[in-house]
Amino acid sequence: MTEFMGVRDAVRWVSMRGIEPIVTELVEYLEQDFRRWGEFDKAPRVAKYTPLGAIELMPTCDAEFYAFKYVNGHPSNPARGFQTVVAFGVLANVHNGYPVFMAEMTLLTALRTAATSAMAAGALARPDSRVLALIGAGSQSEFQALAMRAIVGIDTVMIYDRDQDAAEKCARNLKPMGLHVTVASSAAEACAHADIVTTCTADKSVSAVLTDNDVRPGVHINAIGGDCPGKTELDPAILDRGPVFVEFPPQTRIEGEIQAKPADFPVTELWKVLSGLAPGRTDPDQVTIFDSVGFAIEDFSVLRYARDQARGTDYARPIDLIAEPEDPKDLFGLIHVLSPVK
Amino acid sequence: MTEFMGVRDAVRWVSMRGIEPIVTELVEYLEQDFRRWGEFDKAPRVAKYTPLGAIELMPTCDAEFYAFKYVNGHPSNPARGFQTVVAFGVLANVHNGYPVFMAEMTLLTALRTAATSAMAAGALARPDSRVLALIGAGSQSEFQALAMRAIVGIDTVMIYDRDQDAAEKCARNLKPMGLHVTVASSAAEACAHADIVTTCTADKSVSAVLTDNDVRPGVHINAIGGDCPGKTELDPAILDRGPVFVEFPPQTRIEGEIQAKPADFPVTELWKVLSGLAPGRTDPDQVTIFDSVGFAIEDFSVLRYARDQARGTDYARPIDLIAEPEDPKDLFGLIHVLSPVK
Repeated sequence: MTEFMGVRDAVRWVSMRGIEPIVTELVEYLEQDFRRWGEFDKAPRVAKYTPLGAIELMPTCDAEFYAFKYVNGHPSNPARGFQTVVAFGVLANVHNGYPVFMAEMTLLTALRTAATSAMAAGALARPDSRVLALIGAGSQSEFQALAMRAIVGIDTVMIYDRDQDAAEKCARNLKPMGLHVTVASSAAEACAHADIVTTCTADKSVSAVLTDNDVRPGVHINAIGGDCPGKTELDPAILDRGPVFVEFPPQTRIEGEIQAKPADFPVTELWKVLSGLAPGRTDPDQVTIFDSVGFAIEDFSVLRYARDQARGTDYARPIDLIAEPEDPKDLFGLIHVLSPVK
Repeated sequence: MTEFMGVRDAVRWVSMRGIEPIVTELVEYLEQDFRRWGEFDKAPRVAKYTPLGAIELMPTCDAEFYAFKYVNGHPSNPARGFQTVVAFGVLANVHNGYPVFMAEMTLLTALRTAATSAMAAGALARPDSRVLALIGAGSQSEFQALAMRAIVGIDTVMIYDRDQDAAEKCARNLKPMGLHVTVASSAAEACAHADIVTTCTADKSVSAVLTDNDVRPGVHINAIGGDCPGKTELDPAILDRGPVFVEFPPQTRIEGEIQAKPADFPVTELWKVLSGLAPGRTDPDQVTIFDSVGFAIEDFSVLRYARDQARGTDYARPIDLIAEPEDPKDLFGLIHVLSPVK
């Protein structure tokens, strides 16, 4: 039977364990998987773009497991009372093709995105980073802040969102967590003393939520909101300020901030930095940029982690997703025909 | 909430309704969707091939719904006590990206494959067809036979499988359904008086389960087992005997029987026949060949049908696949933090 971790299960698990302990362990899974990058079958996600948004399937596999995530992105959703991004995912056994674990992935995606951001910042930001600027205070924002504390040690968060209610919501959620939290009135103000800047806005447009002037020397920029064609967050001039790190170049060139740049714009793959094969930050005054679009291997890692976490607990339960007739050639035998037809 | 039709639900539904009434209605859904072929976003399936088999995602969408199916194909599975093919699928709302219906699709795939075969045979076989030869007596075989009776009116089934137990199993299942059933000792014997020949073997190899000699004039061939690169069932000479009909040429040229032929081998798209835009059979003595590999729109149709069938019944139940926080920007608010950290 496939094990299923639904929303209620995931909420209970995260509430019991806490976001920071989970992110800390999840970063270990992510680092394991990024360091064996070559073992994965990689392909750009399969996206369908519609007038209101995108629906994507993100598959990957290694020699043992196959994983995919279903995820949408509909920027107009919150105004209509829906989540911008909802997601679920499946981990399957490569040897027989059977799905072994299915999970809601709205929460798991927020956790894996935050953990990936924090892992990258741990490798690229100045070790003495203490102040995080959050540009965009939507669903991802609190997860980003707590992950940056767990992995990098930030203690202060400056929040800017053009939706003042969202900024206040984020501040209200983070203050009880023991962080110094301030709502700023502009991106420039939020960034004035920032060591790390995370852009996580949801606008489906080419915008510059961060201008070149906002970025002071030595900052690490964690750009996670520019993640589909026609959706970027950074003034392209920022991309010339320092080295740009990416997950999987063929995907990032289509979906990331560097879509604003020529196809040969130089980038460094994050897995190479984590494996010691490429330099990360080389100077405290350098600007480093993680142009993150989210990649299937990150979903693989979080599914693998969540499955390990759920095993032997009640955070997941069996679901009858797969028919298992006694004789595998006798699928028809499952049908209890009530009376012979003619 | 997403509605979920699990294996127990699907078995109960099919047992209560019966395979033939379901296939008859499903063919109406399939015909509706094939006749508006141009409205669908189509792409070849996304497949990962591993030493033991393939795992595939098959997405498609129209202006209202997005559907995908997860499906494997592992020919060595039955020998290890697993199903060759297991599958599940999801129907989502294009406007907000939310999945609305999830279903097991091992049974649903058998139903949609049988219904598609029967729909094609209804358009291409001689109207007086009464004898079906089944080459391959695995999971799909009984569904194929009953669908051919429901749509085309066959009354006699000749079964051949090199696995004698499988052939006997198929005969045992079909006899109580009121069909004249005979187990043949060779493909040639099974085909000797056949009007329709369905090949549904699972061997992952280039084989010729049907030779040119086995095919008498006027036969309609329904080739469904050759469905991935390196896996074909027909003697390539058969493909020169009459017009070849396919679902989606770019996919069939990679996966179907015509992979044995040059890239410009002429084929007719089945949807054009169903829409009256291309001729089907033009002569009672003609051999017609449906080179079927299974296409995403067929899964779309069966998911749409199963959802309509389950609505207002207990054949599906809500599943908490998608987080729905009260404030869509406050995903974090779902987490009931037990105590402030640090």
